[in-house]
Amino acid sequence: MQGLKDRAAIIGMGQTKLGDRFDAGFVDLAVEAYVEAIQDAGIDPKEIEAMWVGVFEPNMAGGFQGMAGSYLAEALGLWDRPSTRVSNYCATGMDALRNAANAIAAGLYKMVLVLGEEKMRDVGSRDSLIRQTLLNGHPVVGKGQTAPGMFALMANRHFHEFGTTKEDLAKVAVKNHYNGSLNPKAHIRKVVDIDTVMNAYMIADPLGLYDCSTVADGAAAAIVTTPEIAKSLKPNGDYVLIKSIGLSITTDARYFDPYEQYIGFRSTQMAAKMAYEEAGIKNPAEEIGVAEVHDCFTITEIINYEDLFFVEKGKGATFIREGVTALDGRLPINTSGGLKSCGHPIGATGVRMTYQIYQQLLGRAEKMQVKNPKLGLIHNLGGPGSVAAVAVYGTP
Amino acid sequence: MQGLKDRAAIIGMGQTKLGDRFDAGFVDLAVEAYVEAIQDAGIDPKEIEAMWVGVFEPNMAGGFQGMAGSYLAEALGLWDRPSTRVSNYCATGMDALRNAANAIAAGLYKMVLVLGEEKMRDVGSRDSLIRQTLLNGHPVVGKGQTAPGMFALMANRHFHEFGTTKEDLAKVAVKNHYNGSLNPKAHIRKVVDIDTVMNAYMIADPLGLYDCSTVADGAAAAIVTTPEIAKSLKPNGDYVLIKSIGLSITTDARYFDPYEQYIGFRSTQMAAKMAYEEAGIKNPAEEIGVAEVHDCFTITEIINYEDLFFVEKGKGATFIREGVTALDGRLPINTSGGLKSCGHPIGATGVRMTYQIYQQLLGRAEKMQVKNPKLGLIHNLGGPGSVAAVAVYGTP
Repeated sequence: MQGLKDRAAIIGMGQTKLGDRFDAGFVDLAVEAYVEAIQDAGIDPKEIEAMWVGVFEPNMAGGFQGMAGSYLAEALGLWDRPSTRVSNYCATGMDALRNAANAIAAGLYKMVLVLGEEKMRDVGSRDSLIRQTLLNGHPVVGKGQTAPGMFALMANRHFHEFGTTKEDLAKVAVKNHYNGSLNPKAHIRKVVDIDTVMNAYMIADPLGLYDCSTVADGAAAAIVTTPEIAKSLKPNGDYVLIKSIGLSITTDARYFDPYEQYIGFRSTQMAAKMAYEEAGIKNPAEEIGVAEVHDCFTITEIINYEDLFFVEKGKGATFIREGVTALDGRLPINTSGGLKSCGHPIGATGVRMTYQIYQQLLGRAEKMQVKNPKLGLIHNLGGPGSVAAVAVYGTP
Repeated sequence: MQGLKDRAAIIGMGQTKLGDRFDAGFVDLAVEAYVEAIQDAGIDPKEIEAMWVGVFEPNMAGGFQGMAGSYLAEALGLWDRPSTRVSNYCATGMDALRNAANAIAAGLYKMVLVLGEEKMRDVGSRDSLIRQTLLNGHPVVGKGQTAPGMFALMANRHFHEFGTTKEDLAKVAVKNHYNGSLNPKAHIRKVVDIDTVMNAYMIADPLGLYDCSTVADGAAAAIVTTPEIAKSLKPNGDYVLIKSIGLSITTDARYFDPYEQYIGFRSTQMAAKMAYEEAGIKNPAEEIGVAEVHDCFTITEIINYEDLFFVEKGKGATFIREGVTALDGRLPINTSGGLKSCGHPIGATGVRMTYQIYQQLLGRAEKMQVKNPKLGLIHNLGGPGSVAAVAVYGTP
């Protein structure tokens, strides 16, 4: 058995502006991301042999668009080809990319498209995500727990066990809002200070308004090919190699983390172990140069530091206190602004994170650029908590 | 580039009894199919490294179960592994199998599970598939067209163009009901005669009650591995090789076949071309020994004969008139009883068809067994009409 390491490459990416995209429908967003990706790759769309489409739940956001690849095939001119829709909670986009990379590694195609998208806004009041989630019997939300409520429990437990504080959480928000202010495609481009975050109205104690990520529309696209073709099309090395993609289903979605006593996610830990083993990474905090992690809430980012083995369990807050994960820190995290500033269009998020790491590894991240990263990581957590994906990308 | 041919093998399969499974929930059905597959494969469940789950639309049938692999992971004892949910209209199950086979061909895993399932019954009156489909803005159904109505238009056009008759359709129903009567796992096990079919009450002229497939619950499972492992675990050759899997998105789901003037489906034709090329098949009607094709309606089976290049366009009815596709014919089709008798639990169907061909190729189809087939084919059509999958399986 061999892993994915260096067997698939990304030669083009696109991403929409994220946010309240009342100006654009489902198909418009797909086209926006796709056109940028095709232009970046410098290929003829006819070369695309197959597609993987990551959309979590099109029915929730009011329509059959996104149920399969057929709408996109029309808009993108990609008829008579295979298209697979993948849906995997908040790891949807990453899992679409994973299945595309698998097919490239198998030698079945030379050039494929991955599109991650979610239309979260533009939804009538009777069709909101939460209402649909309730109607459809979500195992946790249906019992009265909400995402902020669940992550608030984790925050309080982390405070109790390890001395993490509300101010630590606020520092995550300040960092990610700052980074988002530099990202022209972020949903929220607003710098906030500690006092603003600390005094914002409470959503679920201790999580206030600025501790929560936003609800946004968005799409992102990637053109995946073989390393050989990437090298021939991009002789200057302007592409990234997929080093590994780990994915783990670890707990039932009915229980919010039975393993880790509300201080961590085994799914992240398992996916990270898979990804590090496949990529040959021994010391992630030393070897990874830049990362996008699933900061659905500020506490989640701190817990992710630990679950990704960047720092010992319980010590996550030291990373934010010491500025390790700041844009100019030793391990810059969520340089895009994270889910905090970019929002979380579910199916898009993993591909949107990949876009950020791709730009970083290619030295094109403009005001968000970190110094010369060689390896970048992305991480998704969903389910809630039941599934996680971790991918590592590298320069050629 | 190389195709899938002989790069993945199926060494175990399971299938539930299909039908009104009010006795079994979503997870129960999964376990029922899985246990049979594991026992058939003769492996330890611990050997399963990854899963692909094909479920079209769990929300339609009343719940979050099936949204991802997490519920199944609990029931099946498959934690800490990757699980991908694939959704692709009526080709959902086949596309799950395709992505699993791709990963095996890539050498990423040695042993994986594919589960196709749909819970279509057990749904409150306010949650029926049709109501949910309407609510969610299905592009065709939402405008007042129903599946029987659309396929009735095709039947009338086929009658007009080629002289196909309502009696030809009835002969398909008689054949598939007879085959279904021999299948202990079919939904409907009832022999019907021509007069019964011809005089049954009309659903959408010319399609009467017996021209329509049934709505059923069901699940089917497959254990996929490498040909080398298959050979070592099954030295007697009791496994099948995947020769090819073609998949094509060909028309927008908003338009019911703009290409073929209501006499055929380009999606089937494209998927068949892919599958034949990959498998190296020149004369499908001569080389294929047994097939399961998507007989959502009797007219669809006749059109499938043509679109799969078994017979010239317009001549499909000759196949049923001359008994070519009967159990004792030259090319037996839908020996399981087809969707007509087995029902159509959407995510399960492709895997359920594969189960039938697997049993046929292994000589285990009991009363449905045909003489010594070497190659078997399965075909799905969905979308409606926008997507099709064609797979070819062979004996080692």
